[in-house]
Amino acid sequence: MNISKMIAPRSIALIGASSNPNKIGYQILSNIKSGGFCGHVYPVNLSEESILELKTFKSILDIKEHIDLAVIAIPAKFVKDAVLDCAKARVDSIVIISAGFAEVGEEGKAAQDDIASICKKNNIALLGPNCLGVINTSLKFNATFAKDLPKEGHISLISQSGAIITSIIDWSKNSPIGFSKIFSIGNKALIRESDLFEYLYNDKDTEVVAAYIENLEVDQHLSDTFIKFAKKKPTIILFGGKSSFGARAALSHTGSIVSSYTSVKAYLTQAGVIIADTLEDLLLYSRVFAAYQKISGSNITIVTNAGGPGIAAADHLHDLGLELKELSEKTIAQLRRHLRPEANLTNPVDILGDATELEYEKALEIIANDKETDGILVILTPQSATKINETAAVIARIKSDKPIISSFVGGQILTKARDIIEDAHMPCFSYPEEAALGFLMLSRFSLGKQTLVSQKDSRRNHFPLQNRDRILLDYGLPVVKYFEGSNFDRIKEEADKIGFPVVLKTADQNSHKSDQGKVILNIEDTFHLQKAFMKVGAPAIVGPMIDKKFEILLGIKKELGIGMTILFGTGGIYSEIYKDFSYRIAPISRDMAMDMILETKIGQILNGARNQKKYDLDKLAEIIVRAANFAGDYQNISEIDFNPIIADKNDFHMVDVRIITNDDLEKKK
Amino acid sequence: MNISKMIAPRSIALIGASSNPNKIGYQILSNIKSGGFCGHVYPVNLSEESILELKTFKSILDIKEHIDLAVIAIPAKFVKDAVLDCAKARVDSIVIISAGFAEVGEEGKAAQDDIASICKKNNIALLGPNCLGVINTSLKFNATFAKDLPKEGHISLISQSGAIITSIIDWSKNSPIGFSKIFSIGNKALIRESDLFEYLYNDKDTEVVAAYIENLEVDQHLSDTFIKFAKKKPTIILFGGKSSFGARAALSHTGSIVSSYTSVKAYLTQAGVIIADTLEDLLLYSRVFAAYQKISGSNITIVTNAGGPGIAAADHLHDLGLELKELSEKTIAQLRRHLRPEANLTNPVDILGDATELEYEKALEIIANDKETDGILVILTPQSATKINETAAVIARIKSDKPIISSFVGGQILTKARDIIEDAHMPCFSYPEEAALGFLMLSRFSLGKQTLVSQKDSRRNHFPLQNRDRILLDYGLPVVKYFEGSNFDRIKEEADKIGFPVVLKTADQNSHKSDQGKVILNIEDTFHLQKAFMKVGAPAIVGPMIDKKFEILLGIKKELGIGMTILFGTGGIYSEIYKDFSYRIAPISRDMAMDMILETKIGQILNGARNQKKYDLDKLAEIIVRAANFAGDYQNISEIDFNPIIADKNDFHMVDVRIITNDDLEKKK
Repeated sequence: MNISKMIAPRSIALIGASSNPNKIGYQILSNIKSGGFCGHVYPVNLSEESILELKTFKSILDIKEHIDLAVIAIPAKFVKDAVLDCAKARVDSIVIISAGFAEVGEEGKAAQDDIASICKKNNIALLGPNCLGVINTSLKFNATFAKDLPKEGHISLISQSGAIITSIIDWSKNSPIGFSKIFSIGNKALIRESDLFEYLYNDKDTEVVAAYIENLEVDQHLSDTFIKFAKKKPTIILFGGKSSFGARAALSHTGSIVSSYTSVKAYLTQAGVIIADTLEDLLLYSRVFAAYQKISGSNITIVTNAGGPGIAAADHLHDLGLELKELSEKTIAQLRRHLRPEANLTNPVDILGDATELEYEKALEIIANDKETDGILVILTPQSATKINETAAVIARIKSDKPIISSFVGGQILTKARDIIEDAHMPCFSYPEEAALGFLMLSRFSLGKQTLVSQKDSRRNHFPLQNRDRILLDYGLPVVKYFEGSNFDRIKEEADKIGFPVVLKTADQNSHKSDQGKVILNIEDTFHLQKAFMKVGAPAIVGPMIDKKFEILLGIKKELGIGMTILFGTGGIYSEIYKDFSYRIAPISRDMAMDMILETKIGQILNGARNQKKYDLDKLAEIIVRAANFAGDYQNISEIDFNPIIADKNDFHMVDVRIITNDDLEKKK
Repeated sequence: MNISKMIAPRSIALIGASSNPNKIGYQILSNIKSGGFCGHVYPVNLSEESILELKTFKSILDIKEHIDLAVIAIPAKFVKDAVLDCAKARVDSIVIISAGFAEVGEEGKAAQDDIASICKKNNIALLGPNCLGVINTSLKFNATFAKDLPKEGHISLISQSGAIITSIIDWSKNSPIGFSKIFSIGNKALIRESDLFEYLYNDKDTEVVAAYIENLEVDQHLSDTFIKFAKKKPTIILFGGKSSFGARAALSHTGSIVSSYTSVKAYLTQAGVIIADTLEDLLLYSRVFAAYQKISGSNITIVTNAGGPGIAAADHLHDLGLELKELSEKTIAQLRRHLRPEANLTNPVDILGDATELEYEKALEIIANDKETDGILVILTPQSATKINETAAVIARIKSDKPIISSFVGGQILTKARDIIEDAHMPCFSYPEEAALGFLMLSRFSLGKQTLVSQKDSRRNHFPLQNRDRILLDYGLPVVKYFEGSNFDRIKEEADKIGFPVVLKTADQNSHKSDQGKVILNIEDTFHLQKAFMKVGAPAIVGPMIDKKFEILLGIKKELGIGMTILFGTGGIYSEIYKDFSYRIAPISRDMAMDMILETKIGQILNGARNQKKYDLDKLAEIIVRAANFAGDYQNISEIDFNPIIADKNDFHMVDVRIITNDDLEKKK
């Protein structure tokens, strides 16, 4: 789709231009003009001769020049005709500002679909309807009804909320954040977020892609786009309506465990996308990534002229899982030579309340070459002797391949200093905790791996439920075999196959299994088996003796768009209470399976934490991979729960397996 | 101690006044003068005639007027003599700015103790040494070396970091935060935080007490002060060095579970103190409490002119555990009459992008009377039609007994509007999530209960270890009785007392209990008991048969200053992995014990969550109370671990009890 003509047009028609300053059609025209856009602008209006000193046209068809972009801001009922005219005029792209479509109900949805199909047939890129418009700062092009252009920069923004764009533009005015391109996506009739992500990933002016999205449409195109680009260009997404994700997911019967939002998060994280939890974080992360995209490790050294804020930053780095290593001996020796003896050279490095700009400079130059340091967090508090702006200038001049994020702790007196540092493309925040958070995101993006892989359905096997256990065993899955019978000789034969000790329990559905004498554990030989059989009575079930020490849950679910979600964690009765789970999207490697295991608390226990016996986790990782392969191989399997898998005597036993096929789901409907 | 003379002096002597602008002695004098302080100021200096147009004195003893406050800013080695002079001159209070005392080592500590005892003997209130000084905005009194006075207001601040004071003052300049009194506590030689908390709680200009503290000194006085006042005046504390709390706590042998910081948090929370996690939060909470201190419930209604930020706020409220109820039918009917039909009247209430100030006014007036609403979160985004300042004026005028916290989402364009609202003593933030957090704190302070009670040691019983189980049983604690013997008749006799089914296991320490045949479960009668005894061999242990379905941990620990910490949660092998615990400080009521139980996940399971059997939690709460009483009654008990307490068949069984007495701890040393 021709998004580049839309965002960088040479000629625009504004259908619905107005001379009434209260109308959106006036505001957009005024914004295009006052922004400083240099292309040709053609207002389309039925009654006026000229608006804002521009000659108007009765119809887009009257304009002689080829039109790259038509912006439509007229009542919904007239939009279709305008779009048909645009098609006739062979415009490349359309932005429909007008509301009154899918968001108001079925009828609006039908009208919107109609318009989308006209555009599709005529190869017109269509953004909206029901949107704020588009902005391109490098062309000083503002085709929105938001009052001003934001500062120019390298962050591009996709937003499903026009208001959030308006607010962010306003924020950017007295903050160092600068933008390149902004798209308000509205109802997504034709251009969807995946198209815009792809466009921005290929746009050389965009270094960071930020997005606010309320319902992410996950499909092959989005996945492929993220897989190809998200680890190269930092991508930050804030979701709106997280709390309602849960409600939607509850429709699915295992929704209480795998909520859809959790899957989306696993999916995006594996793709290398950063998720912001708040608007504030969306802006903070964007600001950090606009400055830095690489860090070599997670050891942060703090340089401060004040104890308190240094400690606060250290606490926060620690809480976030980053590390404060001590400086190398060489570095300490060098610092000692250049700083006063009272300076504290353990990390956080405290260069004292009256530190001069020269002391800051020396400390930073030396630490920039420290081999134990991956990033430097610089703190300045405005103490009486502090030369604030001079110190800022020193920081701005430091040459280092390590990221430097500063916090000048205070208000107005520091504004200029922060600008000096930001002008050198180094982030400078007010609060030390913000700088710490910046390092966390940087290390996640730079050091995290991308493990999302493009999924192509190839095998089309149909899973035959009647051969269930046989097939599972063929996949190498340790399904526990039980035998039910009324004949003791057959039971004895099976017990021999299973190997003693065994368990014998009644197969009588009406009897409570836990009733005394109806479940006999730990039967060690044939003699005791016979005694047990007499007690339990026929029919009985014989199986291996497995202690229920640790119970594991492995769940697999195919979700539209996202693919196959794999869930691993604590099983059994504690499962839904502790919610001790890790998630991945298939396909999954042995290494990824091992990461999944070790991310959970049950995984830590099985790995020998807290003096527990260490289990063979390679085997368990292999089981996860095999189970995922099994589920992937059969087209009609929609969901599997292995719950519990029991860890006992360094082995794993699948004692309960539940498979749901599409056929089951069809039946339900 | 005469803190009021220190913070509101009529006469000051500055010992160490200097004419050199680089010296602290000059900066302080200059700050006192330029701030606008109206009392008498006497510089003390050996060589100069006058400084900053003030006549100097060679010694404080030369000053004729009585001195309320002496500020000392001379090298450490001269401080003692100056203090002796102050004592002779009968000053009421001293602030020692000079560093070089306890913070530099043993020698400095001795000098500091010496000075403290001189002050104590002479009944002089002493602040510092090694501090920034004190500020009182209502007197325009700035006896610090921080450049400016902050704005006047009703927040008072206690800080162990001078730099944090400097930064906060600077912040306050372009924020609506205003301060009353500020104390830099330094090394706390004499005046400690408890004295300052007490002073500020009794100060009528102080409505909110904020503090930054690195090592809280918990004692009877602090406890009594918090108990008396912390629920009346909002108190917010940020701790520095949280990450090192863990290190210190690790010295204690159960430190991995009850870290000292956790105990401090439990202690402060029960006292009604609010804990801030970051500097940003400290200021945010202070700002909210300066405006509101009461809310009647936790139902928040959002009023917004934009969907996106409304959704973001709703998500955040939901994450924080606050509620969004729907408005009452009456309210909805009223709103319908005054708003346009497209407005969305479900919560978040969306009054549309082009909402006028009159629509805001009507919506707020109506919702202010809604019976389902406890607080109103107002969001404004600067859209093209938005009359920003007019809307702010409308909000500032709303009369409501419900707290109203606003978020004007954007930057510079909204600055004036935010000021208009803040001038009416209503908080207005940039981010909707900040407003949500404000409501959380307000509801915690206003709706939370204070359960910390003053502790007086009265009983001095000595716990005799040899009668352990007898005493525990006397307290009504369900200790499981085991009997060890080699004689079958005695074992049979005990089994009859316990009641079948029983468990028999070997008492041979060298045998692994889990070895086959050495532990026989579920023995139902004497016949089988005898068979089991033959198999296990003598000596053997007989006990009741208890299934290990749910394991509970109850821990009690006496901590210096804090008192008796009670820990409840998941026990057994999962205990340290899930860290599913709740904490309280004794004394504890049945209701508090029930809260403790229900705060944990194991408590939810025992309460019948996820289709589990419901246990008698009243009984369990009673056990917690009794265990706490038991530990409290014996002076020499320092720690008890009941781990696990097994929940089985609607009863609770203490199968393992470990008691540590002071005698044990003494022996260790």
